[in-house]
Amino acid sequence: MSLDFASIRTAHDRIRAHINRTPVLTSSRLDAASGASLFFKCENFQKIGAFKARGATNAVFSLDDATARRGVATHSSGNHGAALARAAKLRSIPAYIVMPSNSAKVKVRAVEGCGARIVFCEPTEAARETTCADVIAKTGATLIHSFENEDVMAGQGTAADELLEGIPDVDLLMCPIGGGGLLCGTAIAAKWMQPKIKLIAVEPANADDAAQSFRAGRVIRTEKKFTIADGLRTNIGAPNFAIIQRYMDDIVTVSEDAIISAMRTIWETMKIIVEPSAAVPYAAFVESKIDIGGKRVGIILTGGNVDLDALPWMETR
Amino acid sequence: MSLDFASIRTAHDRIRAHINRTPVLTSSRLDAASGASLFFKCENFQKIGAFKARGATNAVFSLDDATARRGVATHSSGNHGAALARAAKLRSIPAYIVMPSNSAKVKVRAVEGCGARIVFCEPTEAARETTCADVIAKTGATLIHSFENEDVMAGQGTAADELLEGIPDVDLLMCPIGGGGLLCGTAIAAKWMQPKIKLIAVEPANADDAAQSFRAGRVIRTEKKFTIADGLRTNIGAPNFAIIQRYMDDIVTVSEDAIISAMRTIWETMKIIVEPSAAVPYAAFVESKIDIGGKRVGIILTGGNVDLDALPWMETR
Repeated sequence: MSLDFASIRTAHDRIRAHINRTPVLTSSRLDAASGASLFFKCENFQKIGAFKARGATNAVFSLDDATARRGVATHSSGNHGAALARAAKLRSIPAYIVMPSNSAKVKVRAVEGCGARIVFCEPTEAARETTCADVIAKTGATLIHSFENEDVMAGQGTAADELLEGIPDVDLLMCPIGGGGLLCGTAIAAKWMQPKIKLIAVEPANADDAAQSFRAGRVIRTEKKFTIADGLRTNIGAPNFAIIQRYMDDIVTVSEDAIISAMRTIWETMKIIVEPSAAVPYAAFVESKIDIGGKRVGIILTGGNVDLDALPWMETR
Repeated sequence: MSLDFASIRTAHDRIRAHINRTPVLTSSRLDAASGASLFFKCENFQKIGAFKARGATNAVFSLDDATARRGVATHSSGNHGAALARAAKLRSIPAYIVMPSNSAKVKVRAVEGCGARIVFCEPTEAARETTCADVIAKTGATLIHSFENEDVMAGQGTAADELLEGIPDVDLLMCPIGGGGLLCGTAIAAKWMQPKIKLIAVEPANADDAAQSFRAGRVIRTEKKFTIADGLRTNIGAPNFAIIQRYMDDIVTVSEDAIISAMRTIWETMKIIVEPSAAVPYAAFVESKIDIGGKRVGIILTGGNVDLDALPWMETR
């Protein structure tokens, strides 16, 4: 694993022209409610509505011309699929996105809108992987995994780099954890820039494989329960775990109710749209899982792609 | 009427410490969709979630000490009521907010949360005015009208001042019109700062008294039909009309469907929460009411206070 701070800075130079430098927002009301100073890095304002634009763009623009020409492929029905489709379009190369046949139409449209070729498969993990392998065998495309790819991790790290460049003396940096791509880039950027910073990842209790793995000291895969934070259902990647084990100070879990409550609080108070996964770190305050009194806390709001016809507080009524 | 650019700049100095300098956001997707360069002044991020914080704060801090001590009063169940309550709290003086007995709980809580005294009345225009007059007679409080007050207008003008200070060469500036308080301050600030700028106000077709008045050359009061843009149901004020008649280039109207569509487009594309009234200018593009091709267009997004349990696309399903 050669991921280091230099590779994050190189990634930043590579992708800067293709991504948004997203704003860091503060809220006096949320500061008062939490007793801390909160700095929200708004990746919901990023291209394609999520931080995933950073990693996918870095991975696509890291390929040499001959490799790139054959295209890129991934199996992700979520933000990474849209991000990879967009990055491929920017480089004028083909993108093959393997999506389950039951994917939400809004996600299919997002990928189609970028001109990618969608390959539908049965909605199982096994079918996704074999279908993706088939596509790669036929086309010669390069697999860009959504979190185990080092160039993806380096790209994701540019969000923390921007946040800490603008906001000095952050005591604690928090982000959600799914596969661990964002967390790896974030950890390396943050510990290099501010060595005394504490890093806490937050995970839905219904998808707590990373928290379990962290305590056990080895990767533990868990069965998938439902979580509203659909971006975080994935099990942690093996290469990701090694980095997380080394740099993370803690991984805490939050309930579904706390995630929904946190999401609604952010919408109502900050007037910004964040997806459930992005509300997960704030949910740790809702449940008083972390003592942040008096601290300066950076929070990465990871994305803002939600179906406005199916908001969690509508579904639970 | 002594409202001029100097009074807007004075207002800005007076309120600067008490309000947010809100960001100006852009969207490459909305630029592409409209064929123009759009600059959104995000007053949904303002204190109390709407530009009204500017005018109310200026009015409260313009009062001399003896007058201020007796308090301020208004009849407004909406953003002005919350803004006045907040401004009074900042100056540690009483605020009396007259609200109809059928006001939404969320609005009552917003005003109560600022420590104001709420006086409930029957839900009629006449009851609101007589109740407010009673309160003033009893307490000696000063009426701060939500749009006919000059200090309120001057305060509202600071939003356009900030927008145009940051974004040069705006060809066209757009904002919604209800009573006309925002528009008066906006018009004077904009025409002073960029004399060649065009100003277009947008109004719901279901509350088109300002458009009718503008064409007739005199104030025309219309019966109130329902509009989802509840902040714009008010008839235009007489002092406001005089300024609008002088400075406005046009007033166009938009349908309810276009307002809802515009609101949803802004939520989905920009990932920010705006209330229906704030989406009214963008609705003019939805209905192709204005030719903005190739132009630089400033738009004031007036507020972001919505009931997340009653979104317009939920109600119409």
